[in-house]
Amino acid sequence: MTTSTSRATAPGTDPRQQAREQDLLERVTRSFDSCENPRLKELMVKLVEHLHAYIRDVRLTEPEWAAAIDFLTRCGHISDDKRQEFILLSDVLGASMQTITVNNQAHGDATEATVFGPFFVDGSPEVPLGGDIAGPASGEPCWVEGTVTSTDGIPLPGARIEVWEADGDGRYDVQYDDNRTAGRAHLHTDEEGGYRFWAVTPTPYPIPHDGPVGHLLETVGRSPMRASHLHFMVSHPGSRTLITHIFVRGDTLLDVDTVFGVKESLVKDFQRQQPGTPAPTGRVIDGPWSRVRFDIVLAPEGT
Amino acid sequence: MTTSTSRATAPGTDPRQQAREQDLLERVTRSFDSCENPRLKELMVKLVEHLHAYIRDVRLTEPEWAAAIDFLTRCGHISDDKRQEFILLSDVLGASMQTITVNNQAHGDATEATVFGPFFVDGSPEVPLGGDIAGPASGEPCWVEGTVTSTDGIPLPGARIEVWEADGDGRYDVQYDDNRTAGRAHLHTDEEGGYRFWAVTPTPYPIPHDGPVGHLLETVGRSPMRASHLHFMVSHPGSRTLITHIFVRGDTLLDVDTVFGVKESLVKDFQRQQPGTPAPTGRVIDGPWSRVRFDIVLAPEGT
Repeated sequence: MTTSTSRATAPGTDPRQQAREQDLLERVTRSFDSCENPRLKELMVKLVEHLHAYIRDVRLTEPEWAAAIDFLTRCGHISDDKRQEFILLSDVLGASMQTITVNNQAHGDATEATVFGPFFVDGSPEVPLGGDIAGPASGEPCWVEGTVTSTDGIPLPGARIEVWEADGDGRYDVQYDDNRTAGRAHLHTDEEGGYRFWAVTPTPYPIPHDGPVGHLLETVGRSPMRASHLHFMVSHPGSRTLITHIFVRGDTLLDVDTVFGVKESLVKDFQRQQPGTPAPTGRVIDGPWSRVRFDIVLAPEGT
Repeated sequence: MTTSTSRATAPGTDPRQQAREQDLLERVTRSFDSCENPRLKELMVKLVEHLHAYIRDVRLTEPEWAAAIDFLTRCGHISDDKRQEFILLSDVLGASMQTITVNNQAHGDATEATVFGPFFVDGSPEVPLGGDIAGPASGEPCWVEGTVTSTDGIPLPGARIEVWEADGDGRYDVQYDDNRTAGRAHLHTDEEGGYRFWAVTPTPYPIPHDGPVGHLLETVGRSPMRASHLHFMVSHPGSRTLITHIFVRGDTLLDVDTVFGVKESLVKDFQRQQPGTPAPTGRVIDGPWSRVRFDIVLAPEGT
């Protein structure tokens, strides 16, 4: 493809040029005049406005445009049922976290939300209270317990808690070569809104970085690492569903989490236990283990 | 995937929420501080700023975000060597045309540029002056002639003219089931900067609309049709390469071209010729044919 490689002139230098660019923008936005769904129309018109503003603002060159098309195409080609490069892209641009932020406004002392990530899988096994969500996942045992309450302080029995995490080597089960389920399960709170389960102590890991998004991070000098975390999705009728993580206090990656998921309120004390310390559920553990408390507060639905 | 479906609160209602969104944006833009390529850094930081502005402006919901991820994924999966859904997407959002506009500022009476489109193929056959670029493409014959000059009025001998077009049924050769080359070729101007060739009279056609972009157009009430046109790419050492079309005056689609490619200066008189009218190069034509003149003016390189 032969295209102009010269950098376009900076904006604002030529009123005739500005008028030409503005006229094009208006023709494009008018093309959505017949859209019958007002929300879709708003989404499309605003998308066009912001997209054109970007192109005009940076004076995007044609080779840069072609590189963007190629980048998106490679993201599409590497994506399949288990790999979602567009979610990774949204994550590393902070777009996922901004969407979460916009949709989970503060409400009283409701637990803060963070990114969903690409590793949730529907249909996880159920474990009983005190059960082990790790399954065949390797790693140091971690006892997790807490309560689920409303912002009014009322315990929420029967709340559904989905938990998922990487194993001790930083890999989710969907990244295994076989189809084992590991490090993911769901359970329900008891009559007092309490919950407890065994998991593995979270470890840091890179987001999948062998594709276009990983290459982009490398090119701009960013690390692909995520701070250590354990995923939660907590739902209860009448409450706003909460998608969040808890992070490990002291993790050196907290400030540079590549998907911008860390919030101070979600950083928890994972208390290391020496080998031989008696463990909950009578579990016998050869080496060290950890325990953490996470009390979850759900905002009312529709807030 | 279970996510909040409630519409987020409009922006500007809560200073604490605004601060939280702004803080996230600043954390993301700072993540590019180590990027050593200043242009790439500018492109990424501005992309993040405009992307976050969009999410905050429309208060993008999580299901809408998920729909966008799914849409981009489907665009990627349908794209291959011959189908480029991301170019189509860029085209129907006017992003391609805005990039063209930014990079091809007016310079004297230089011929205006328009969209490149997804149907150019490298390595077209060369035809002599007066030859036929149609090859096996069906359609009504069309004689095309003109000159290539600089904005100083100097003829440009040896300018390379790439031409490509859909056949009389509105299909490019890359949309055929076999690998025939049709409706595309290149030629060079003569010592006086003149050129002439046979082609087929352009006909309107829809952009490929059996994929996600076509579905989007249908959903928002837009037509996938393009105004009839003939593609040109004209290059000459020392001149800015011109990528453009010519359009057919009187075509009812001129005002609703779905990729916003039409410019008044590119609308040409395709003069219909009655059957039996003597044709250039002594060609014997049973039915009607047309002829058009297109004088091309190239801006200096680097303008």
